[in-house]
Amino acid sequence: MDPERLVAVIMAGGGGTRFWPRSRQARPKQFLAFDGKTSLLRQTVTRLEGLIPPERILVITGHQHVSIAVEHSGLPPGSVIGEPSPRDTAACIGLGALISQRIRPDAVLVVLSADHLVHPDEPFQQALLRAAALAEANDALVAIGLRPHRPATGYGYIEIGQRIDEQEPVAHRVASFQEKPTIELARRFLLAGSFLWNSGMFAFRADTVLDALKLHVGDVFAGLSRLVDPRNPAEPPEVYAKLRRISFDYGVMEPALNKIVVEAAFEWDDLGTFEAVARHAERQSGGNLARGEAAFLDSHHCFVDNDTEGIIVVSGVDNLLVVRTQDAVLILPRQDAEKVKDVVKDLTRLGFDKYL
Amino acid sequence: MDPERLVAVIMAGGGGTRFWPRSRQARPKQFLAFDGKTSLLRQTVTRLEGLIPPERILVITGHQHVSIAVEHSGLPPGSVIGEPSPRDTAACIGLGALISQRIRPDAVLVVLSADHLVHPDEPFQQALLRAAALAEANDALVAIGLRPHRPATGYGYIEIGQRIDEQEPVAHRVASFQEKPTIELARRFLLAGSFLWNSGMFAFRADTVLDALKLHVGDVFAGLSRLVDPRNPAEPPEVYAKLRRISFDYGVMEPALNKIVVEAAFEWDDLGTFEAVARHAERQSGGNLARGEAAFLDSHHCFVDNDTEGIIVVSGVDNLLVVRTQDAVLILPRQDAEKVKDVVKDLTRLGFDKYL
Repeated sequence: MDPERLVAVIMAGGGGTRFWPRSRQARPKQFLAFDGKTSLLRQTVTRLEGLIPPERILVITGHQHVSIAVEHSGLPPGSVIGEPSPRDTAACIGLGALISQRIRPDAVLVVLSADHLVHPDEPFQQALLRAAALAEANDALVAIGLRPHRPATGYGYIEIGQRIDEQEPVAHRVASFQEKPTIELARRFLLAGSFLWNSGMFAFRADTVLDALKLHVGDVFAGLSRLVDPRNPAEPPEVYAKLRRISFDYGVMEPALNKIVVEAAFEWDDLGTFEAVARHAERQSGGNLARGEAAFLDSHHCFVDNDTEGIIVVSGVDNLLVVRTQDAVLILPRQDAEKVKDVVKDLTRLGFDKYL
Repeated sequence: MDPERLVAVIMAGGGGTRFWPRSRQARPKQFLAFDGKTSLLRQTVTRLEGLIPPERILVITGHQHVSIAVEHSGLPPGSVIGEPSPRDTAACIGLGALISQRIRPDAVLVVLSADHLVHPDEPFQQALLRAAALAEANDALVAIGLRPHRPATGYGYIEIGQRIDEQEPVAHRVASFQEKPTIELARRFLLAGSFLWNSGMFAFRADTVLDALKLHVGDVFAGLSRLVDPRNPAEPPEVYAKLRRISFDYGVMEPALNKIVVEAAFEWDDLGTFEAVARHAERQSGGNLARGEAAFLDSHHCFVDNDTEGIIVVSGVDNLLVVRTQDAVLILPRQDAEKVKDVVKDLTRLGFDKYL
């Protein structure tokens, strides 16, 4: 496959509620620097260096985040597309595919998320190249899978089928897509050895994925087509607002027949909750974890995420999550880390909008 | 009694550990504004308005806090005396008595603490006047007592004896001084009705208290006498460093024979721990309490003391104490509020001096 055909579509949506108070409406997760230096979006762009040049990278984000995305990505303004409203991943990927054809009519897309942790870059690029080559040659929808090393309930899984060939990284036909499992099912997937985490990263030819969208989510495809049809210049916000919200996994990958999964060999985390951040934090005594300055006294299994110059002192407390930014502190039990978006809902209801 | 003889001695020592991170070594409790406006020291000085003029008010504080005490008290520099090292209340009151005699050789002292909450001022001044008059007329050591309304274990108690006269506020001979009791004993004191809280405020003639110091803590008296003897100009830090650390209650009031207690009618709190601060905080739903901006979600009986412009959100947590200042957050169970000074010790040991 000609690598000049590669176009990256980076999905940078997301409302910024799961990481409150670190993430805000004005600064969702993809614009945060979890390593204290570089934002996740910027990391996603630089991770493509040597594989895909900036002029073949598209970033799709909420319309209100276009300028921050231009700033963080370092890409020219035309490379950052603002969605008038969030319509989930089927619409987002369809939009990316349509626009990528303006760059190259024969584009082969790699679809990435702007808010994943990936390390190191080399096996990442190898997996993308392999996925793109398989997609191109087989007219297939290709997913990037990762071998699970814990029974995660926060990810979808891909069951592998027949192996494609003897090349590395290993690729299989997809036997099935599995939604986020219960903990019991996640343990069975882990033991079975035939299930990979669905990273949400994909590769396919633009024409392949547009055909699949037309077939499986025809209404979404029709709406998107109106947007890019020069003979019918519809108002994007109007058309967009009417698009069905459906995920690409559920709407397209699950029903599609010709699909492949590449088992990638990089470390990956989609940073879905503060627990994901905790996995990358500094280990302290007592099973406590910290990002930033913290002291744990007679406390166990706490996680402090401190984004300020000051200190957080936790004394005589177990299993607590503490997040601090300049203007807010959030304290809740660690097992409630997934409920942070509900906290944001409650704060909205209580009128604390200025902190959201 | 001639009110011109009244000299106030305000004890403003204290190391600033019990209210960390609100109090610091450089800014102990007496310099904090628990009402958000006026520091406790300043409140203590202004509470004497109309009773004792500034030129007859002395403030005794640690040598390192003289300039902040001058600033907060609004008194001329000569009115603020810096102790070279903290030697407990017997030495502090003795020093105050000796220096008050320079202002008036026939001084009648009222001894106050700089870090108490007192409200309103009128019964406070009435109690001081009554105590001073009784002290002057009877050559007695007079304590200010308050009727307990809960079985507090953080205060000493004074058992009342024979009533002095029919005047108001009521005054009794002191039957006994009681150290801080257990909760069981505190309940018995409360039910008995014959025990008052020992406020730590006193009145006596300077000559009376100096005689009592000479009799009961002769070594402390001798050391202090060297300090103010012009024929023997000893180095204050040297002499002071050798003074025995003993409290005035234990060293002088307990063994003294001629002592009276005035039952005062003002509201009083010595703000000994964050629990005392919580008693004066804003009540929110779920039995939660707050000073400053806070939101409680599915949380109960928490106390948030927020000294910043930002918000503290507590979700799904019970009985937690959260204190926030610009550069520090402290989180611990409310029942550990008395252990904050141990937290400060631990932080010292761990090398976090810059926050202390």
